[in-house]
Order: sequence, then C-alpha cells, then structure tokens
Amino acid sequence: MRICLIGAGNLATRLGITLSEKGHQIVQVWSRTIKSATELASKLGCEYTTDLTSIASQTDIYIIAVTDAAIPTILAKGSWGSTLVVHTAGSIPMDILAPWCLNYGVFYPFQTFTAEKKIDFDTIPVCLEASTPQNLEVLSELARSVSGDIKFLDSDQRQQIHLAAVFVCNFVNHFYAIGEELLREKGIGFEILKPLILETASKAILQSPGSSQTGPAVRDDKIIIDKHLTLLNTHPDLKNLYALISERIIQTHKNYNGIF
Amino acid sequence: MRICLIGAGNLATRLGITLSEKGHQIVQVWSRTIKSATELASKLGCEYTTDLTSIASQTDIYIIAVTDAAIPTILAKGSWGSTLVVHTAGSIPMDILAPWCLNYGVFYPFQTFTAEKKIDFDTIPVCLEASTPQNLEVLSELARSVSGDIKFLDSDQRQQIHLAAVFVCNFVNHFYAIGEELLREKGIGFEILKPLILETASKAILQSPGSSQTGPAVRDDKIIIDKHLTLLNTHPDLKNLYALISERIIQTHKNYNGIF
Repeated sequence: MRICLIGAGNLATRLGITLSEKGHQIVQVWSRTIKSATELASKLGCEYTTDLTSIASQTDIYIIAVTDAAIPTILAKGSWGSTLVVHTAGSIPMDILAPWCLNYGVFYPFQTFTAEKKIDFDTIPVCLEASTPQNLEVLSELARSVSGDIKFLDSDQRQQIHLAAVFVCNFVNHFYAIGEELLREKGIGFEILKPLILETASKAILQSPGSSQTGPAVRDDKIIIDKHLTLLNTHPDLKNLYALISERIIQTHKNYNGIF
Repeated sequence: MRICLIGAGNLATRLGITLSEKGHQIVQVWSRTIKSATELASKLGCEYTTDLTSIASQTDIYIIAVTDAAIPTILAKGSWGSTLVVHTAGSIPMDILAPWCLNYGVFYPFQTFTAEKKIDFDTIPVCLEASTPQNLEVLSELARSVSGDIKFLDSDQRQQIHLAAVFVCNFVNHFYAIGEELLREKGIGFEILKPLILETASKAILQSPGSSQTGPAVRDDKIIIDKHLTLLNTHPDLKNLYALISERIIQTHKNYNGIF
C-alpha cells in the first residue's frame, strides 16, 4: 500500500520503519517541525512536508500518529478526499474523523514505543475499528502485514484498554522508578531489582495476576506493613501510596476468598 | 553441606529443591504441620519433624525459612549449639539471632517465589550478612553453589530492598490485576495486555525507568488524564490512585528537568 504518515514521533517512527520493511511504500511524512519531518523522511527515503495543505494526494491511506490534542487541528486543516484516514490513538473515539473524512477508521498498535528501542512489531496487538466493513477489510490487511495479533475493538473498549495500559505500563514503570529511587538512597544499584522485575512480569503472563498476588498485604502481615510505613516517614507521598495500595490488596484478596 | 531446613513454604520448597540438586544434603525438614513437613521431606528424600526440640544436631547449617512473625518463637524453642543459623527474611535484622545463636547470619534470596512455578535460581541475587568473616565465608560458598549473583548487604540495606520489592513486585502485580479487572468489565481478555507488560519490564532492564517514563502523566496531558479520571468515576479507589500516581509522575518529571 501507499502510505502517507502524519506525524514523526515515537509511534510514527516505529510504524513507518516497520511498514516500509514489510514492503509498503511510505510516500510522504508530514510533521509540524522541519527537523523531525526531515529526520524521519530520511530514514524512510521519502518526501516530507510541514504544510498540511500540500500533503500527498496519491496515497491509499493517511495514518495520523500525533499527540491526541493535535488531532482535531490536523483533521480540520487537511483535505482528505475519499482516501481512507485512520488515527492511532487509544482514547480518541473513531467518530472524531466523521465530519472530515468519507472513509475512516482507527489503527491502534497497543504497545509502548520508544524512538531508540527497536521492537518486534509482529507480537503487538493491533486494534482496529472502521467506518465500513470494506474499510475494516483494508485495515485488517494492512495490520496483518505487520502483526500476527489483530483485535477488533470499538471506541469504548479501546478507551478502556488505554486506561488499563496506564496502570500496567506507565504506573508500573513509575513504580520501577520508585524502587530505583529507594535503592539509590542506600547506595544500592538498580541491577539487584532486575531479576525480580522480570520474574514478576513473566509470572503474570502464566498465571492470572489477580489470583497470584504475593507480599505482605495479601498475607495481611501488619508487622511488615507497619515497618515499611515507618521507613517511608520521610516520603509522605510514598507512604500514602503504600498504605492505599496495601489496603486495596487486602480488600481485594478478602473478596477473592468470599469473606465479603 | 549438610542442611537442616526450618520451614516448608514457597521459599523453603524452592530452596530445598535447588540446594539438593546442587549436591547438598538436606538432612531434615521441620514444619509446624505434619502435612507440609512430610510433603517437602518426600520431595527432598529426607527426615522430617514437627518438634523443634528434636531437630537434627548433625548438620552444618540451619536455614530458617518461615514467615517473619514465626522467627522469634522458633529461635526461642530450638537448641542451636554452635552450628551456623541463618534466616531468609528481608525485613528482619540479623541481630534477632544474636541472643539465641553463637554463629549466625542472613541468607536472603531476592526473588518472588511461588510453590508451583520452577525458577532458575542461578540468576537470583542472594544477599548475605553474617556475624563473623568466617561465617560470611561459609555463606558465600553456599550461595555461590546455587547462584551467580552474590551481594553483601547489611540489615538496613536489606530492609530497603525489601521495601523496594513491594513496589516493583507486589504493587506492580496488583496493577496487573487492576488491568485484568478493567478489561473484564468490557469483555476483553487479559492476553491483550501481555506484550505491553513484557515490553515495559524489558525496557526497564535496558534503560533507567526514572528517565524513560511514558504516558499521559509525564506529558502532563490533562485531557487524557481527565478522561481517565471520568472513566474511573465508578471506582473511587482507583480514581484516587490514578490521580495520586499521575501527580507524582508529573512532579518527578518536573524535578528531572530541573524546573523545581
């Protein structure tokens, strides 16, 4: 397929490189700044522009991969004709495209992207939604060319997986950072946490995390919990978080056992 | 070495099996209940007892692997002679052993253990502390026979890594469970989160998590944050957690950029 990429951030970069490797033709990159536009265009060996009124018309699809807040302006400024237009955002309903495009949909690769880190696209769930069955067929074909894991989710479900992702990815990463911070205070390197981080993730892949909780809270071990809360006296924000999450684990676990 | 195992829970089980595989001789297992004592003893092909006054005296080391709360009673009831005694607890200072034992220390494998899940002990950091350099030498030798990663930490540092572990393992797993719960409400299977969970963990191994935060909070993307808070109106506890952690990410990130 001929593809015009609107955006040049982490997702646009990973997506552009992968689509290109899979034999698609990236015809043009648009970005707000000339720097990022040329950078990505040179990686992809394609044209670039910073002017939405001069985006390529000879394309099979426009893929909008920009921050959520920029989507409405981009939609209003471009002229899309009858070409298929998709956005790649978890929390933006598909209908945002309706006033501006005849054929539209959503192409949401459900993964965290870092510009520097190469990622195997093949295992990334790609969540699709489209305005017509024909458009969904086109998106499915495109998605299948880069990933073995296609999901059909509506806007409501997509919004929910984005919310879940904030907990299991963004907040989890912040908790890794808290661990790093706590160790640094005692002169201990972050490496010591790595086997534990990997085992915790790999356990969640094999067993339902809801039913394989470990630690002081699930045992309702008040001695350890109190000891940890005392250690956190100098970090009131962490102490508060520790107490809230421990309480939620205690309550959830009671529910699992049918006590409540 | 000849080893007497005091305890028959997840850690005692994994440790006993691993030590036995590495050629050590488990001479006896003690457990509070006859059921768990016989279960583990049969796995290890050794004697068992539920009576602390009749634990084996012909051993090179006693390894106490029980819940923290049970340690003081066990220490008071056993007769340890001059044999080396270690506990395996993150948050219990080594000195708890001093009134009861002549030679003592701590042998703390820093990992999450589930009785059912086999684990490669070789990559687990084993944190050691001992009452004398000679005892530390004995513990180092024992630790090196099962793991390639030996750390020497004092009681204060060990307590801190245990606290960090609650954040990066127990709380992280609870957040996986929250993800599972949020998806279930919209009829979506947990599988869709797995590639994200693995990538988030593997990214933290390669890059400092403190400096590779992603998501709406680090971008201070108030539109998405407000949308997610609204979605969580029916879960006041999760809404509260979402707001607190997002705020902490926003503040931490500002600090990283030197704005505060």
